[in-house]
Amino acid sequence: MSDTENKTGRARGEEWWRTGIIEMRPGVIRLRGYEIQDLIGRVSFPAMIWLMLRGELPSEEQAALLGVALGAAVDHGPQAPSIAIARMAITCGVGINSAMASAVNVLGDVHGGAGEQALSVYGDIAAELDAGVPLAEAVSARLDRFLVGENGYVPGLGHRFHPVDPRAPRLIELTRDFAARGVVSGRFADIAEMVEAEVARRKGKKIPLNIDGATAVIYGELGFPPPLTRGLFVLSRSVGILAHAWEQSQESDRNKGPLPREWLWAYTGTPVRPLPEDDDGSQ
Amino acid sequence: MSDTENKTGRARGEEWWRTGIIEMRPGVIRLRGYEIQDLIGRVSFPAMIWLMLRGELPSEEQAALLGVALGAAVDHGPQAPSIAIARMAITCGVGINSAMASAVNVLGDVHGGAGEQALSVYGDIAAELDAGVPLAEAVSARLDRFLVGENGYVPGLGHRFHPVDPRAPRLIELTRDFAARGVVSGRFADIAEMVEAEVARRKGKKIPLNIDGATAVIYGELGFPPPLTRGLFVLSRSVGILAHAWEQSQESDRNKGPLPREWLWAYTGTPVRPLPEDDDGSQ
Amino acid sequence: MSDTENKTGRARGEEWWRTGIIEMRPGVIRLRGYEIQDLIGRVSFPAMIWLMLRGELPSEEQAALLGVALGAAVDHGPQAPSIAIARMAITCGVGINSAMASAVNVLGDVHGGAGEQALSVYGDIAAELDAGVPLAEAVSARLDRFLVGENGYVPGLGHRFHPVDPRAPRLIELTRDFAARGVVSGRFADIAEMVEAEVARRKGKKIPLNIDGATAVIYGELGFPPPLTRGLFVLSRSVGILAHAWEQSQESDRNKGPLPREWLWAYTGTPVRPLPEDDDGSQ
Amino acid sequence: MSDTENKTGRARGEEWWRTGIIEMRPGVIRLRGYEIQDLIGRVSFPAMIWLMLRGELPSEEQAALLGVALGAAVDHGPQAPSIAIARMAITCGVGINSAMASAVNVLGDVHGGAGEQALSVYGDIAAELDAGVPLAEAVSARLDRFLVGENGYVPGLGHRFHPVDPRAPRLIELTRDFAARGVVSGRFADIAEMVEAEVARRKGKKIPLNIDGATAVIYGELGFPPPLTRGLFVLSRSVGILAHAWEQSQESDRNKGPLPREWLWAYTGTPVRPLPEDDDGSQ
Repeated sequence: MSDTENKTGRARGEEWWRTGIIEMRPGVIRLRGYEIQDLIGRVSFPAMIWLMLRGELPSEEQAALLGVALGAAVDHGPQAPSIAIARMAITCGVGINSAMASAVNVLGDVHGGAGEQALSVYGDIAAELDAGVPLAEAVSARLDRFLVGENGYVPGLGHRFHPVDPRAPRLIELTRDFAARGVVSGRFADIAEMVEAEVARRKGKKIPLNIDGATAVIYGELGFPPPLTRGLFVLSRSVGILAHAWEQSQESDRNKGPLPREWLWAYTGTPVRPLPEDDDGSQ
Repeated sequence: MSDTENKTGRARGEEWWRTGIIEMRPGVIRLRGYEIQDLIGRVSFPAMIWLMLRGELPSEEQAALLGVALGAAVDHGPQAPSIAIARMAITCGVGINSAMASAVNVLGDVHGGAGEQALSVYGDIAAELDAGVPLAEAVSARLDRFLVGENGYVPGLGHRFHPVDPRAPRLIELTRDFAARGVVSGRFADIAEMVEAEVARRKGKKIPLNIDGATAVIYGELGFPPPLTRGLFVLSRSVGILAHAWEQSQESDRNKGPLPREWLWAYTGTPVRPLPEDDDGSQ
Repeated sequence: MSDTENKTGRARGEEWWRTGIIEMRPGVIRLRGYEIQDLIGRVSFPAMIWLMLRGELPSEEQAALLGVALGAAVDHGPQAPSIAIARMAITCGVGINSAMASAVNVLGDVHGGAGEQALSVYGDIAAELDAGVPLAEAVSARLDRFLVGENGYVPGLGHRFHPVDPRAPRLIELTRDFAARGVVSGRFADIAEMVEAEVARRKGKKIPLNIDGATAVIYGELGFPPPLTRGLFVLSRSVGILAHAWEQSQESDRNKGPLPREWLWAYTGTPVRPLPEDDDGSQ
Repeated sequence: MSDTENKTGRARGEEWWRTGIIEMRPGVIRLRGYEIQDLIGRVSFPAMIWLMLRGELPSEEQAALLGVALGAAVDHGPQAPSIAIARMAITCGVGINSAMASAVNVLGDVHGGAGEQALSVYGDIAAELDAGVPLAEAVSARLDRFLVGENGYVPGLGHRFHPVDPRAPRLIELTRDFAARGVVSGRFADIAEMVEAEVARRKGKKIPLNIDGATAVIYGELGFPPPLTRGLFVLSRSVGILAHAWEQSQESDRNKGPLPREWLWAYTGTPVRPLPEDDDGSQ
């Protein structure tokens, strides 16, 4: 890094903002080394996403599978806080980009983190497979670690609302199709299914794979690191966020609150009281 | 609306959050009437975006052209405020979704509005064509209106950095290809090219179509209303925002400011002075 | 500005980030020319806010009146979208600063703009008074302009929920107190009261001053320009936003949606349908 | 909670949004039980903040000390990412509330978390004092735990830029003044000074208390829990964020990037290359 430290002036300033993603000169834009006008019309939108994030172009099949995962998680309805926030925000007189921003901002560890957490677990197991540990053993050992500290909550399984998440079986089925064609190995699907089976054995009932686990399988098959999959979930959910903000913007509500306009909220605090006799903090 | 006003209790609450986008029951998720497991793997990610925003599935060709436009505007480098903000944010100890949110939030009227504004102009002209006005006349009349109040700034033309925006000619070329195949009419390309020609005639020099004008052409050909294209630009630029946040997250900078760490800023304010003798606002 | 354009290197970079607010050197922080250690403990928080925004220290009385206005608008309950958003956001696994950001972000033209709009109207009238126009005439003329295009909606008057906004009369009373002591002139109070009276005359019923109009009076008396008062409202409402986020963070809700957990939403869209026979946009 | 579960309809909806902070009926607004018109003009802005967050009114002195801490951390200049982001955002055509939101959003664990972390350490030591452990011993034991895992970084000490943070000594001096008057106990000041002394002894050089440690002392003296002090820092820094956004809004820059307009960035990525022969992901 001494190269950087020796720079001064404009060169130092430009070094401060160095990147390997995009190169520009007047009339020239290159993304990861490719002229943008060569990319336009020759690579799909999912392939462009892959190129920007990974630095290399995927095969058409890999891009297609990425698009499958991105499309699967776009929406889960107005009871998801991100969706409700987008709808309320757009009624407050801000641009649609700001309605989207307030919503995307809450895809945090609880509302958006399960996929990343599931892939992290699957990745740990995959590392054990690489070291020669048999699948069932690797899964069991990882679950031991997980279940001790985590009250038995394994990310990627179960759903608050759906007995079976309708998106998961289809995503695994597609993963198997792509594996059969040699696009991916299929081993993350194996891992996830073994996790599901072992948890069912331990708990005496099946807790099925959900959207987070199923998309984690695909992102794992495609080689995305867990923290980056949070960003992929953001790209995906941004579509539903935009759709709902747009739909709401066509209505006439202003300053839309969470409950019907004529409702209030329950007050559970101190009953009415007078200010103390002595003057507190008066101006 | 009397139907809504007569509802009470839970039905009133659920009516307050009504939507035509997504239907859910335990085990069931439908987007615009289609079971999600039927959509997964059968429609591309751009087609899913179209379905969510427009309510109907596009043809494969229409989805492909949408993907072309979305992929073209993903990044313009760290001197774009949205990109710089994403890079700084991720060094401050917030989740990648929040780094993306702070960035997406600034795609406002100045940083993200030109495409919407360009399409609005093209749409006005298209309406005149529908009324039977010849193209050259419709363009000239619209430019008269525009240039009077706007100091000659026509959205969709010119670029602060590029003498010719390398993305625009390729996007128009592709639009012509899709028009030749009957996927779109080509008339927004005609409109934009006539606008470019008429401005050149009036100013005595060519101010070429830029990315905003070119993507506006495609969105117009595909029937998207101008305000919604702002959201499409957000989806597109989110990709570059994520890529830059991710790349920055792999570096060790903490609390990254806009200038090299050892630089400061120029102070242009009041020289050092003592507090006034009389106590102002003391506690 | 030629001075700026001639700079290069580090000086140019530091000029790019010039400010008159804060000066720093190792061991030295000065705000508007005052050593920060001289300000601490000698100026109140409202006086510090004034100094940062206006560049000069206010009198103790001016700072007190600013504090009065800031404290009056801190909260309006969970049916305000900003408050509901803060409460939902904190349950999603993001930091309290991000919960506050998502909320503050929606204090837009509809949810936070009325105070700025009211002060703009009062300021127009004040300009007329400066030109020698009598108050009643200036008010009437301004209302003529306003009511023509605006469907009779005058910012600063009326309230969706309160027949009389309980905050407004007290704020005007205090303004009169401060005017009697010579801290302010009282003329914005005169203006607002004349606007209220003239609207009542025209409409045949009183539409009383609300929080936006009353705080606009105070900010106008204190000389704040209308666009800056939007920022003051943000500072004020941030307090309620924080209080609600904090209270919610002490509960166990995760991913809190707008309706009770066991409720859904009403679906108003296309009934269930199969995918079209021809393959649309398949991968 | 069975009370809640048995509710249905509107009562269930209103229960879902229950709060102990604010009670409202037409014409009535009560904060923590006090009529708002009784609070206005009788409690200072810091006292209002205290009431909203803590549920009870502070004494005038306590409110004053809170105001001291809030005023001390309002700004640290455009090299702080939050400040730079606010300045860039306002040039992008978004409202001042959105410029503030993008900025506040990055006051995360790295940019805004040190005060909370410092108070957490001081609080651990205070708990030991309550259990009868002598101060020096409690400090030493806590530092042992801290320094083992944390590479010797103790929150609240040291500064990247200032050999001595000019704000800290003054804040401790004021804390001692308030303790002398019996407003606070002074024990958090004792703890922080012992931490500073013990770290100096161990490292062989003094690493002085900084703004985060000094405000943590005050917030600790006043009884605020550590996570809530993050929110207090947000309120404080929002003032500088607003001041800088406002100052920038008076300039003519549009889409302000981090470097001077005529600079670029250093490209460190793949050199220019043609698209691969085989068609990847083509449309």
